[in-house]
Amino acid sequence: MDPEARLRELGIALPSPPKPYASYRTSVRSGDLLYIAGQGPVRDGVVTVRGKVGERVSIGEAYEAAKLSALNALAIAQQHLGTLRAVKRAVRATVYVASAKDFTEQPRVADGATDLLRELWGEEGLPARAAVGVNVLPLDIPVELELTLEVGQAPAKP
Amino acid sequence: MDPEARLRELGIALPSPPKPYASYRTSVRSGDLLYIAGQGPVRDGVVTVRGKVGERVSIGEAYEAAKLSALNALAIAQQHLGTLRAVKRAVRATVYVASAKDFTEQPRVADGATDLLRELWGEEGLPARAAVGVNVLPLDIPVELELTLEVGQAPAKP
Amino acid sequence: MDPEARLRELGIALPSPPKPYASYRTSVRSGDLLYIAGQGPVRDGVVTVRGKVGERVSIGEAYEAAKLSALNALAIAQQHLGTLRAVKRAVRATVYVASAKDFTEQPRVADGATDLLRELWGEEGLPARAAVGVNVLPLDIPVELELTLEVGQAPAKP
Repeated sequence: MDPEARLRELGIALPSPPKPYASYRTSVRSGDLLYIAGQGPVRDGVVTVRGKVGERVSIGEAYEAAKLSALNALAIAQQHLGTLRAVKRAVRATVYVASAKDFTEQPRVADGATDLLRELWGEEGLPARAAVGVNVLPLDIPVELELTLEVGQAPAKP
Repeated sequence: MDPEARLRELGIALPSPPKPYASYRTSVRSGDLLYIAGQGPVRDGVVTVRGKVGERVSIGEAYEAAKLSALNALAIAQQHLGTLRAVKRAVRATVYVASAKDFTEQPRVADGATDLLRELWGEEGLPARAAVGVNVLPLDIPVELELTLEVGQAPAKP
Repeated sequence: MDPEARLRELGIALPSPPKPYASYRTSVRSGDLLYIAGQGPVRDGVVTVRGKVGERVSIGEAYEAAKLSALNALAIAQQHLGTLRAVKRAVRATVYVASAKDFTEQPRVADGATDLLRELWGEEGLPARAAVGVNVLPLDIPVELELTLEVGQAPAKP
């Protein structure tokens, strides 16, 4: 598996890794785990979509927002590790979905993040996941992804 | 401690382990930790209770929902590990409670999950826990449990 | 770094470590990680501030509530480890902010917790952080902090 080659095949360029805009780090490694700070649909510092799913934001838009959140998490991982080939598997993800109070399809939104991870690492890209609704998220983003990855030995570049 | 014998003593049968119904894995192991995906009150693929606590769902019903969520998590752990005797301790739990906006007794709901874990493993069954309210959960379930377990050497069956 | 000396320099006394008031442990260690249960603005068993941020609670009050939540987490860590000098770094934090539905500055609230951690450990005190809004928290507290620390060898006292 070469996730960076796979991204190129899919025609996907990683966004520039988001900087922390408050008092935290975007990634912290402890042992074999890389903890990535909560990520949302931001590109080059600009929020791409705002609002709650089931109100102003559709499931399709929220799915794309979750995908972009995952790309931001991967950009941070790449920055931290040098290469995504050092990622062994996705371990855990919590996907917070800003939801209208009667919107109950958070898993369909969260799939936007985890479908992408599966594209890049196969089954090992799928984390143990919790998808939950919340009433509001920072900057009025519709989705926030908290992701933990396991790091292994980076295989030599093929 | 033989948690499976203890379950039998308590007259509790584990439910069939829930399958992922979206793009994730129900459990991922990394090192000594087993991360279990968010679980709710589901039995044989059917949601047993819907609604928010403090509105349609009582604390007692939500306590039972949290207990069933924990049983589902344990069914997944048993499936992954072969036996619950391989579980050394509960490490961490987040319990999300779909709450009316003035309902503030999330810890009493979350006890439904962790009281069960203590029944099976004593103090080692009690995780570091966060109980929080949210406005809505997937499938309109009232409770979702995210659990992490530490795995040890499974003792020989007594 | 001597975080306890730094606390004294800052004129901050750690509160007495909160006891679990339900079925959980306030801290669980697994390997090098110390998982701390969700903490809120409580001092000597009394909640210091209630309500939602953006309604009854201001950002400034919520920032202080997040700081007190972090102090409670550190009091628990000190109780568990004997000394805060055994803490190597902050790994991960989730900050749940009880929010009016149009309040979107959760990161500014969460900074109350992580600014304090940085005061004590510098950059290593900054965790990978997720700040999210929720509609309500236990006991009507405005903030709840879930923190994971990495434990190292405690350096000899200077």
